[in-house]
Amino acid sequence: MRTMLLTPQVHFAGGYPQLVSLTATNLDTLCINTIRGLAIDAVQKANSGHPGMPMGAAPMAYALWTRHLKHNPKNPCWFDRDRFVLSAGHGSMLIYSLLHLTGYDLTLDDLKSFRQLHSRTPGHPENHMTPGVEMATGPLGQGISTAVGMAIAEQFLAATYNKPGHDIIDHFTYGICSDGDLMEGVSSEAASLAGHLQLGKLIFLYDDNKISIDGSTDITFTEDVAKRFEAYGWHTVHVDGMDFEAVDRAITEARQVIDRPSLILARTTIGFGSPNKAGTSKSHGAPLGPDEVNLSKQALGIPLEPTFYVDPAAQDEFMKAVCVGAEQEEAWDIRFGAYAGAYPEEAAQLKKAIAGDLGKAWLESLPSIEQNIATRKSGNIVLEAIQDALPTLIGGAADLVESTFTHQSHSADFQPGSYAGKNIDFGVREHAMIAAANGITLHGATRGFGSSFFIFTDYCRPSIRLAALMQCPTIMVFTHDSIGLGEDGPTHQPIEHLASLRAMPNLNLIRPCDGNETAAAWKIALESKQTPTMLVLSRQNLEPLTSNDVRNHPLERGAYVLVEASADPKVILVATGSEVGISLKAARALEAEGIPTRLVSMPSWFLFERQSAEYRTSTLPKGVPTLSIEAGSSFGWSKYATDSLAVDRVGLSAPSNVAMAEFGFTVENVANRAKALL
Amino acid sequence: MRTMLLTPQVHFAGGYPQLVSLTATNLDTLCINTIRGLAIDAVQKANSGHPGMPMGAAPMAYALWTRHLKHNPKNPCWFDRDRFVLSAGHGSMLIYSLLHLTGYDLTLDDLKSFRQLHSRTPGHPENHMTPGVEMATGPLGQGISTAVGMAIAEQFLAATYNKPGHDIIDHFTYGICSDGDLMEGVSSEAASLAGHLQLGKLIFLYDDNKISIDGSTDITFTEDVAKRFEAYGWHTVHVDGMDFEAVDRAITEARQVIDRPSLILARTTIGFGSPNKAGTSKSHGAPLGPDEVNLSKQALGIPLEPTFYVDPAAQDEFMKAVCVGAEQEEAWDIRFGAYAGAYPEEAAQLKKAIAGDLGKAWLESLPSIEQNIATRKSGNIVLEAIQDALPTLIGGAADLVESTFTHQSHSADFQPGSYAGKNIDFGVREHAMIAAANGITLHGATRGFGSSFFIFTDYCRPSIRLAALMQCPTIMVFTHDSIGLGEDGPTHQPIEHLASLRAMPNLNLIRPCDGNETAAAWKIALESKQTPTMLVLSRQNLEPLTSNDVRNHPLERGAYVLVEASADPKVILVATGSEVGISLKAARALEAEGIPTRLVSMPSWFLFERQSAEYRTSTLPKGVPTLSIEAGSSFGWSKYATDSLAVDRVGLSAPSNVAMAEFGFTVENVANRAKALL
Repeated sequence: MRTMLLTPQVHFAGGYPQLVSLTATNLDTLCINTIRGLAIDAVQKANSGHPGMPMGAAPMAYALWTRHLKHNPKNPCWFDRDRFVLSAGHGSMLIYSLLHLTGYDLTLDDLKSFRQLHSRTPGHPENHMTPGVEMATGPLGQGISTAVGMAIAEQFLAATYNKPGHDIIDHFTYGICSDGDLMEGVSSEAASLAGHLQLGKLIFLYDDNKISIDGSTDITFTEDVAKRFEAYGWHTVHVDGMDFEAVDRAITEARQVIDRPSLILARTTIGFGSPNKAGTSKSHGAPLGPDEVNLSKQALGIPLEPTFYVDPAAQDEFMKAVCVGAEQEEAWDIRFGAYAGAYPEEAAQLKKAIAGDLGKAWLESLPSIEQNIATRKSGNIVLEAIQDALPTLIGGAADLVESTFTHQSHSADFQPGSYAGKNIDFGVREHAMIAAANGITLHGATRGFGSSFFIFTDYCRPSIRLAALMQCPTIMVFTHDSIGLGEDGPTHQPIEHLASLRAMPNLNLIRPCDGNETAAAWKIALESKQTPTMLVLSRQNLEPLTSNDVRNHPLERGAYVLVEASADPKVILVATGSEVGISLKAARALEAEGIPTRLVSMPSWFLFERQSAEYRTSTLPKGVPTLSIEAGSSFGWSKYATDSLAVDRVGLSAPSNVAMAEFGFTVENVANRAKALL
Repeated sequence: MRTMLLTPQVHFAGGYPQLVSLTATNLDTLCINTIRGLAIDAVQKANSGHPGMPMGAAPMAYALWTRHLKHNPKNPCWFDRDRFVLSAGHGSMLIYSLLHLTGYDLTLDDLKSFRQLHSRTPGHPENHMTPGVEMATGPLGQGISTAVGMAIAEQFLAATYNKPGHDIIDHFTYGICSDGDLMEGVSSEAASLAGHLQLGKLIFLYDDNKISIDGSTDITFTEDVAKRFEAYGWHTVHVDGMDFEAVDRAITEARQVIDRPSLILARTTIGFGSPNKAGTSKSHGAPLGPDEVNLSKQALGIPLEPTFYVDPAAQDEFMKAVCVGAEQEEAWDIRFGAYAGAYPEEAAQLKKAIAGDLGKAWLESLPSIEQNIATRKSGNIVLEAIQDALPTLIGGAADLVESTFTHQSHSADFQPGSYAGKNIDFGVREHAMIAAANGITLHGATRGFGSSFFIFTDYCRPSIRLAALMQCPTIMVFTHDSIGLGEDGPTHQPIEHLASLRAMPNLNLIRPCDGNETAAAWKIALESKQTPTMLVLSRQNLEPLTSNDVRNHPLERGAYVLVEASADPKVILVATGSEVGISLKAARALEAEGIPTRLVSMPSWFLFERQSAEYRTSTLPKGVPTLSIEAGSSFGWSKYATDSLAVDRVGLSAPSNVAMAEFGFTVENVANRAKALL
């Protein structure tokens, strides 16, 4: 078996590139080809997947993982580890192979169940399924954009907690991205932001294989990527990606460039090692097939049997990561001890942050709000009140902070030279904003939030969904939540957005009706551990209507009886956000006419649907005529309402009250619509 | 009144730039300031809007509209006009002023009702509200990206129909964009695509005012934009945007660069003319206020009263567009006549295309499909069958044409040097793809389509919504439509997407259950004039189930009884797409157990909800227990179903049949769930 060690260099006819660097040792070659072999076998066994990417990117991954990456396989959560993001998530077998080989809790049997039901090796990486996977990737562009958030978090924590002689937070954020990642707009936004922010500890390897699914990138992607990234303010370098030592040198160089993020453009051959499919899209998204598997293994010096073969020498080499990692973490523990001795307060605060413990001080600071103001302004009051108690809550707006009111006035802006600032100016980049906020939250010790107009959830929907899928409790603040925003008109007025986001699994959308519901909603958002929360807030003023006990507010049940009927209800009004106020007036009008009317405030479907059946039925009983009132699409409301006062067309440009009246959101019309149900 | 003509040059203290170019004539200055005055007054009267952009961009707009733009104000639909897109749609008063001044059907009274209910001057431009507005803008980045599609259409039509000596199709696509436009990822995708495609007749002016809503772009946007666009392959030039003659020269130069799109980076002062707000974000998104209005008018030499003042000399100058435009169209008519004489067949075909007349040949070619194949493959059979009959139907995929099967095999790829190709390789750029497809459709004579995986509707949602809002019948083909796609797992499995898109006003989402429904869906899509259609297709094979009369298929009613119960139905199964097949088997099993069961196929909620109440009630009567079966979120189904077999969590990575079974999509489970309703 070990004889293949002696045949690492194979040459093909027809100008096929040599299989390994001339200076590589046999052991390096063996290790690189071991990664390839596992990827080949797992994809073939699953009869599904992407072998080409791992085969081409194995050398760069080997260089990064064995020569640079700071990590402890036995403690994937060690806080000061380097973060590694496989943005090209379709190459999942690359990271699964690396995790297995370097000693993470991922067995060969796990690799053998690649892409099977309930396995820990799903088709694309998922952070909550596999130890060592930092985030879910697959939707292109998300990885690199989320990594920008991780690098922001590192810079923020370093600037906030490090002290002279105590570099407690000091790690890199690495990643591998593909052509597809760099074609997606979200990565352009994120790269521009990262360049502006001079995130020097962000280093990405670009697997430049010139192949995408439909063929050569010549048909679509002929831009000068290096020049583009230089325009963003990145350090760039071209290397031969098949020469792992060249990659190694490029990473070393990039680590020394501390004032700019780095893109290493590594020219690779997709499907390297496959005699008939390498360098073509045929190796991208389908198994090689049994014959080509054998030919590839022969070319790479891998035994045909057993499959999933790992040579002991390669295994030993990779497993060095376990000792090295343990030593690194131990050294860090000692350094942290010294830091804690010198700066006990900071160390305690950081430790709590790392543990995800927000403490109680913020809860005590949570304000009741009894003013007739927009819920976006109430949100501001909340954030201002709790900011000092939450030193690692960081975020901002997509160039709308003057409208979303998400500024923390006790802190500076997060900018080069001012990385301890908690306020992030994301620019007009909603998509990168939410991706980065996810990265900030995933990093740990920090909690990320982003804000914009509600209509622009459309611009960042893939990152919103990924937060939900990753069980990442990012906080999202979206204001100007309906036709009630007025004159900006239909391009800016959300209609279907409430429905479309309520339908998203594991997203808690909350549309509060007043200041106190807004404060209670912020509480829910901050306490959430596995669910992102979206606060949907009004542009226009809303009167105070609900309990001022914001630490124990009925909003927590999702929907609740705000005003009970004077007798057994003949009709129920159920409303959310800005429509609760007029519904309350309509309920009073109906009562005045002798119609017992219940008013239910329903800020969160997500929370309501987690209540007991008994509670749900008692709040919104089936037999009573029920009118929903919400300035958005009626879509979905049939579940709870007999009829809906809603907006089932695009909006219109007019002053807020005119637009609302045009669509029937008046006290009189609510009452009439309710009476029509009797 | 006319004396202000003599005071065009005003200087401010504090290094304020001079108000006009030293070489500008008084008349030019007057015209430019007239645009500014109308914008100032309209925003002030509405007490809402964005005055700063029109005030800063007036010189470049003046240069473009009076020295270059080929258009006929009295016939905004003249086919060979230059297209003009105000990508920075918040500066809507710029285009409204220009349209009014150059003689379009937009009166001073229209300007006075800016942002009011049912006015023709909504807050952001809307193509179907205002003659001369090519598309709705406001959501940033959409304008420039859609304009790329218009330029594609022009190149395609020119390559297809022009003959030696007969340049019948020969116009530019111009636009003005802002910082925000260029920060949005969609514009990066579109610019990279436009550079690759070498769209030389696309010319954008970048209103580089260094100000966004939250302040100076120094806080967010410090990249080298020119260098980035050069990396994409664009011609770029920097000019002083306040010097309209410099802009004029830059446009002239850009028109001569025919092998690359052009970006003219015009440095401007936002709110130019406002002594206290120019150059700051204070002039961006709010009225200047009465005092500053007066000060600005004084500075610009505009009389304070009457408001909305248009000097007759300026009016005369702008109105030259009417004569010039009429002459240009007349000359084109003559040229078209000569072309028609020489090439009668091509001329007739082009004329039909311009009129939006698809003819009948494609209908006759529409195939019946009786094979057990995936609906994505059925879609391919349809497209292949009708391609020759629809010579101006162009589109493609976002690097997934091998999976979406939207290639037209009788035609080449649309590439530089091959602009008559009907197949567009959009790259991994879903967002720019749908925006460009919208531009292709809006251009006229061409019909645009795009395709990708259904999950990636999230990536292009703003452009999907804009198609719906603009009443632009773009065709969208999205495949791999559920957990049924299998191993790629939750990042690739749509769950909430059916619900979230059904909720969108004026989008016709059709999820066909077999080949014949797919053919009928394509028919609906092609016949639609004001509604975009989204075809949602399976990855996996589906048996033929429905009528082969695809030209008169019951799918046109949105939902219909596919199999009637043997007696009065005791239970109704309503299903869509890939779930109709198992529901049919379940219905048979129920019937075998003596339970009369109706099966309703419901491919399109949009179409069903446009049927008569009688039809709807007879198809899905309220009183009968109804089970919906769809491999997606249950959200919304309460409207039609008593219970839903659905997927209300993220998916999982497993082979298709395993994933489907895991979520209960088996014949047995459907039958059991139905029986539980009895």
